[in-house]
Amino acid sequence: MDEFKLIKNYFHQISSDNKFALNLNDDVFFEKKKKLAISIDTYIQGIHFLDFKKPDLVIKKIIRSSISDLICKGVDPKFYFISGSGNKESFSKKNLSKISKSLKQEQKKYNILLSGGDTTFSNKLSFSITSVGYSKKIIYRNNAKLYDDIYVTGNLGDSYLGLKVLRNKIRLNKKDKDYFLRKYYKPDIQVKLTKKLFRFANTSIDISDGLFADLEKMLNNQRYSYKIFEDKIPVSKKLSELIEKRKLIKSKLITNGDDYQVMFTASKKKSRIISHTSKALGIKITKIGKIIPGYKKDILISQKGKEIQLKNKGYIHKF
Amino acid sequence: MDEFKLIKNYFHQISSDNKFALNLNDDVFFEKKKKLAISIDTYIQGIHFLDFKKPDLVIKKIIRSSISDLICKGVDPKFYFISGSGNKESFSKKNLSKISKSLKQEQKKYNILLSGGDTTFSNKLSFSITSVGYSKKIIYRNNAKLYDDIYVTGNLGDSYLGLKVLRNKIRLNKKDKDYFLRKYYKPDIQVKLTKKLFRFANTSIDISDGLFADLEKMLNNQRYSYKIFEDKIPVSKKLSELIEKRKLIKSKLITNGDDYQVMFTASKKKSRIISHTSKALGIKITKIGKIIPGYKKDILISQKGKEIQLKNKGYIHKF
Repeated sequence: MDEFKLIKNYFHQISSDNKFALNLNDDVFFEKKKKLAISIDTYIQGIHFLDFKKPDLVIKKIIRSSISDLICKGVDPKFYFISGSGNKESFSKKNLSKISKSLKQEQKKYNILLSGGDTTFSNKLSFSITSVGYSKKIIYRNNAKLYDDIYVTGNLGDSYLGLKVLRNKIRLNKKDKDYFLRKYYKPDIQVKLTKKLFRFANTSIDISDGLFADLEKMLNNQRYSYKIFEDKIPVSKKLSELIEKRKLIKSKLITNGDDYQVMFTASKKKSRIISHTSKALGIKITKIGKIIPGYKKDILISQKGKEIQLKNKGYIHKF
Repeated sequence: MDEFKLIKNYFHQISSDNKFALNLNDDVFFEKKKKLAISIDTYIQGIHFLDFKKPDLVIKKIIRSSISDLICKGVDPKFYFISGSGNKESFSKKNLSKISKSLKQEQKKYNILLSGGDTTFSNKLSFSITSVGYSKKIIYRNNAKLYDDIYVTGNLGDSYLGLKVLRNKIRLNKKDKDYFLRKYYKPDIQVKLTKKLFRFANTSIDISDGLFADLEKMLNNQRYSYKIFEDKIPVSKKLSELIEKRKLIKSKLITNGDDYQVMFTASKKKSRIISHTSKALGIKITKIGKIIPGYKKDILISQKGKEIQLKNKGYIHKF
């Protein structure tokens, strides 16, 4: 049973009286009256991060992952809370000062403030991050319109290559290794785009589980389908070269998540303002497909122009 | 290194710019302008709860523990979030429906609403609970006045006896066993007292780590000491009988925490309104000591009238 089903089957009904909870269909809690948005995520060693050899980088990754949930919905994060559990080794003085330094850097970069938390000793290392922001409105899931264009920011797949490097599943030169590792640990989250999203996005999500899994989550209550063009899916120059040289399959590299790019849908009429925003902010925004009629009729148009029916796209974090 | 020192040494400075975070000296985050209070706690199997044989009761315990943080500060909890990590056995269908039923009961009892959360698979079972409430003000720690009286609600120690039963460290008849287990799993948190606290309390905390450890936390930034009268510390009739029959040491039974009673200090002048409030709400409130001058001069007056200097009172959750 995967995460989505677990929540759906058992907790959905409990929160059904709570209109603020977005019926647990969104990652983000939003109370309009108080303009309050909250996102909570748990990160476990061996599931969400491989090891704790680089505590400074792991911390950056999970902070960005957490605030990314707010950012992709149009909410600027303001506060965050961190609860850590781990053994004495994980929370050694050396590691603690690295964590501390890392948090300070992230606070400065994203204008967020540590607001509380706790630490507990445990054999298994895990962190829970709560991010809080204030916003008059947010962009909900399940609000795509038929024939909307589907867009993503930045590039996909670099982070997954970084994970492959960490797991020694691919051999690369030092420069490329460093590049992909950096993308894995320090995803370029699109904080500048946050407030602009309201101008054009009908629905949005951040790509954390993988392109198709997140498309599914973004649309899961609507009886629509999507069509994605494989050749339109944006990848970095480095990844593009690697795909060509090593004969890698692009659609497999971009379905493993941890990209933390924003995906949204928008009316065709918004294409000009989207391209204008992209240029003004210096953020790559790429149209990769569209919302089509029908239910469970999702299609990938392969690079060779072949139409592939998509099934079984759910993704559970694992190494 | 214990939890408090960890946070103090490394994270204190990071949040020093953030006046809302109460400098991580309180368990609760409070932003006055937005009237927002947030409490976050992580509960780990083997550390905060023994096992998961009774998921319905474990869930009740951790929900009450979480909202207790807000309640003791004068804030009514409104929303809560739950993040669980565990294996398939912990999150079996049977357990999930027990958890679900338990959450529904707690929601009704305390007028709170599940507002989000996630579940992840992991070998180690843990939960993070975030509780949110709105309040114009809260009662801070480190705000005791010299010669304030120290009060606690309800009874202390029953929960620890429940833990002893669970660990087969004490033999009791079925009726007593059930009584102490009930107190361990379902502490009587004082939700009716919440808003009344502002009428008399200068500073407050909930007793989660143990009487002396929490006294320490409540006063840790003030250069005051406290004097506690052992015979005044309120215990239940059942525990009192047991202490007498088994020659147990009272002061040891009430320093293990998990009581979730409210401890506060108040001016001598408030004694009448406190006793009135106690009667009106039907909540036992007992004066157990007072704030005295001096730093690190904490005293316990034993039942035999002996003056005992208190040292090394920190408590780390462990079995």
